[in-house]
Amino acid sequence: MDQDVHIITVAVDDLDAARRFYVSGLGWRPLFEEPGEIQFYQSAPGQVLGLFDAEALDVDIGDGGVHSRPGGFTLAQNLHDADLVHRTVDRMERAGATILKQPQPAAVPGMMHAYVRDPVGIVWEIAHNPGWRIDDDGAVVFDAPDAG
Amino acid sequence: MDQDVHIITVAVDDLDAARRFYVSGLGWRPLFEEPGEIQFYQSAPGQVLGLFDAEALDVDIGDGGVHSRPGGFTLAQNLHDADLVHRTVDRMERAGATILKQPQPAAVPGMMHAYVRDPVGIVWEIAHNPGWRIDDDGAVVFDAPDAG
Repeated sequence: MDQDVHIITVAVDDLDAARRFYVSGLGWRPLFEEPGEIQFYQSAPGQVLGLFDAEALDVDIGDGGVHSRPGGFTLAQNLHDADLVHRTVDRMERAGATILKQPQPAAVPGMMHAYVRDPVGIVWEIAHNPGWRIDDDGAVVFDAPDAG
Repeated sequence: MDQDVHIITVAVDDLDAARRFYVSGLGWRPLFEEPGEIQFYQSAPGQVLGLFDAEALDVDIGDGGVHSRPGGFTLAQNLHDADLVHRTVDRMERAGATILKQPQPAAVPGMMHAYVRDPVGIVWEIAHNPGWRIDDDGAVVFDAPDAG
């Protein structure tokens, strides 16, 4: 099994609220949308974030289970500097998100981060980690924190 | 706020089980790991999937909430043909996953898919959708299903 994620699908109770936050609030552009059913946003090269009506996701999985309570995951952005972390968190709050953790130093030395919950329940980590970079070919290079 | 996801972090109760499934079972290679704490796997250009000890994630978010029950999301792979869907689902099952939905036609015309839960609770959709392709620059091109 190749080591790829092509779609992150999240169960959403209120797709109109999702659209107000991501499109009107943050300026994102849907790749495709079907009102009341799904919104796709490109989220990385070769990948989309899909916001899917919660009941429709349960029906689609079809095992009789309830998969529609978002939890147990976060999505993250790693930004170029600490100032951009503050500005991004401010913009998310103005667009209707709730700050769970104000920007502050993280456990990794030199890193700072915040946690923000969007109006439909997705928890975002907004961070600056100087030990993270992306090579020209898309490879993530992660300098492990020095314990010394 | 840029339209990017750099990290998908999932709360995991049993990181050893995660390692047995992804590394020993599926042949994935961690980019970085801290035993008992986190495993990072590159999941797209410029992006990692992070499996994070569930209690540590709650502590890291730090708002007093419980964020450590995976639910309300799926990760998906869109594969080249239907045969590869069957082979991937078989391999996941041999590695310890549970099939929630056997490979079968999906709602989108011409598409087939299956749902599989890994041993730590992540639900994967394994699909072949002929209307999905990735351009050389990483742009996802999504042909909306023809309603006619």
